[in-house]
Amino acid sequence: MTSRRITPIILSGGSGTRLWPLSRLGRPKQLIAISGEETMLQETARRASDPALFEAPLVVASADHAEAIEAQLAGTPPARLILEPAPRNTAAAIALAALNAAEDSVLLVMPSDHVVARPDAFRAAVEAALPFAADGWIVTFGVTPDRPETGYGYIRQAEALGAGLFRAARFTEKPDRGTAQAWLDEGGWYWNAGIFLLSAASCLEALAEQAPDLLAAVRASVEAQRIDGARALPEPVSFARAPSLSFDRAVMEKAPRVAVVPVDMGWSDIGSWEALHALGPADPDGNVLAGDVVAVDSTGCLIRSDGPVVVTLGARDMIVVATERAVLVAPLGEGQRVKEAIDALLERRDRPAS
Amino acid sequence: MTSRRITPIILSGGSGTRLWPLSRLGRPKQLIAISGEETMLQETARRASDPALFEAPLVVASADHAEAIEAQLAGTPPARLILEPAPRNTAAAIALAALNAAEDSVLLVMPSDHVVARPDAFRAAVEAALPFAADGWIVTFGVTPDRPETGYGYIRQAEALGAGLFRAARFTEKPDRGTAQAWLDEGGWYWNAGIFLLSAASCLEALAEQAPDLLAAVRASVEAQRIDGARALPEPVSFARAPSLSFDRAVMEKAPRVAVVPVDMGWSDIGSWEALHALGPADPDGNVLAGDVVAVDSTGCLIRSDGPVVVTLGARDMIVVATERAVLVAPLGEGQRVKEAIDALLERRDRPAS
Repeated sequence: MTSRRITPIILSGGSGTRLWPLSRLGRPKQLIAISGEETMLQETARRASDPALFEAPLVVASADHAEAIEAQLAGTPPARLILEPAPRNTAAAIALAALNAAEDSVLLVMPSDHVVARPDAFRAAVEAALPFAADGWIVTFGVTPDRPETGYGYIRQAEALGAGLFRAARFTEKPDRGTAQAWLDEGGWYWNAGIFLLSAASCLEALAEQAPDLLAAVRASVEAQRIDGARALPEPVSFARAPSLSFDRAVMEKAPRVAVVPVDMGWSDIGSWEALHALGPADPDGNVLAGDVVAVDSTGCLIRSDGPVVVTLGARDMIVVATERAVLVAPLGEGQRVKEAIDALLERRDRPAS
Repeated sequence: MTSRRITPIILSGGSGTRLWPLSRLGRPKQLIAISGEETMLQETARRASDPALFEAPLVVASADHAEAIEAQLAGTPPARLILEPAPRNTAAAIALAALNAAEDSVLLVMPSDHVVARPDAFRAAVEAALPFAADGWIVTFGVTPDRPETGYGYIRQAEALGAGLFRAARFTEKPDRGTAQAWLDEGGWYWNAGIFLLSAASCLEALAEQAPDLLAAVRASVEAQRIDGARALPEPVSFARAPSLSFDRAVMEKAPRVAVVPVDMGWSDIGSWEALHALGPADPDGNVLAGDVVAVDSTGCLIRSDGPVVVTLGARDMIVVATERAVLVAPLGEGQRVKEAIDALLERRDRPAS
């Protein structure tokens, strides 16, 4: 066990339209209390807040959300809030963080909008992975699957590198249902949660090898960045030259020393209303309810209000989400089509009044 | 044809919870624009506004709605707005009106919350009935059924009394489905729309015979009523002694000279969300939409908003109604249970916070 402390990197760049109308451009998922009292951003920061193990975090976010983030993290302020000049996916965001971190630091990269129901399991996995990350391995956290999920990428384990840690043999895209079931039966396959532990040096080295143009653009942007209190504002023209790539695609699928630490931590990315329904807790009728809601003779529903009282009557397996601005109603299973709803709404709003 | 003009009596006593959350205690159905630009009260007043045939109306209503009614009828002000001291059903309301009307007048009693899609047919029926009403007959309007409806009372016709008018043989309560179908097949049965044409004298005579206690209580109340501009405020203590009876039960089922004038006038009492859905107009997907609504891949729905934008996605045969205060979601067919929703809501609101 190394005594070095870890620098959390919290990625808050998501626009979060998948939980519309609760989330929207101005209020993405990570800034909302979805499953508890705290917002998902606050829960993420808390998960890596023990000073015995962690430094203050670096947060990478859109400038649109800077004030909301600072307000939400007032109790555990970030060492630096790095404001992306434009959305450029996770590889550029992680590069921004690595270039703003101390050269000898170890980084724990975490999306800000994931649920971890068992943070102790997560912490144990982080501790198991730390010596390997300090030694130059890029460690990813593989979530033990409990169902043949087709919505996530998977990681296949190879030989053990140590206690609870394996070399990563292969990263895959989202499988079809039959493949997902076969992998679940076979074992040794894990969901790719997009959480990484790696040294800043390894991160920059891997980027230099696998995505040199991206690293050059981000490095130029950081070298010219403006500092305003705890905020860092990278220079936008250079940053705009960075290609939009996921860190998985840019680095993880190609780098030579990649490890996976399996962890069963009650993880969900809450990527859809269905995922939130699955997360529960459900009442005896299978309804997951939140806010000012009355479900009469209704079963299997996700019903949530942040605005007007919602009453359902004889509803079966429905999604009903209300805010002061908008109401979404869809059968459970159609929630992944929410972008169609947003598009239809935008199209209608753009139409001249007639 | 008599040359005497008719005094419309508009009954606006309904509390209108059946279209909750659009209607509510403070804003009953008749005060809302349900199916057009005008409120149902305004449409009702307009239906009997031709000065060639009609005097200014008398309106019987709850004091809670006095200002809203005066505002809505500003263009066609009532001769008198009679404010019921308490809700006492239609027999007492009609007695209030008859005692406030000129002794020699003929009264056209109309609920204020019904739709009449073909007002010309209604007017023709009124003109056909007028000589009979002037001659002492109590005439009711029988709506030609187009389906085996179990939600209404029925009237059976007997022998013809003149052109388009029959003696009423029998009033019945709501039938079961088989009976309703048999009556539809048989013909000569009509829906009881609760619309009446009768002279004030006949009305008071029938009440004196069939409901003397009720008439005495209302008469004492009217003799002591206070007049405030166009408002009449009957004395409440006497009025409270009037039993709560429908005019059908108190008078129509028992009086000797009752006639029915069949009329096919596109009538609906909009007694449920299903009735409003049936009224249409529906789009090509069978959706009846009103307000700020976007239906994506949705069919057979009634979707209405007076508040936040409502988006449905893949919804089938659903009722979705939103206001700024409340949202109702139910499968079409369950809308008649809306009282359960209100009760559940009240129960929850009464519960102490825990």
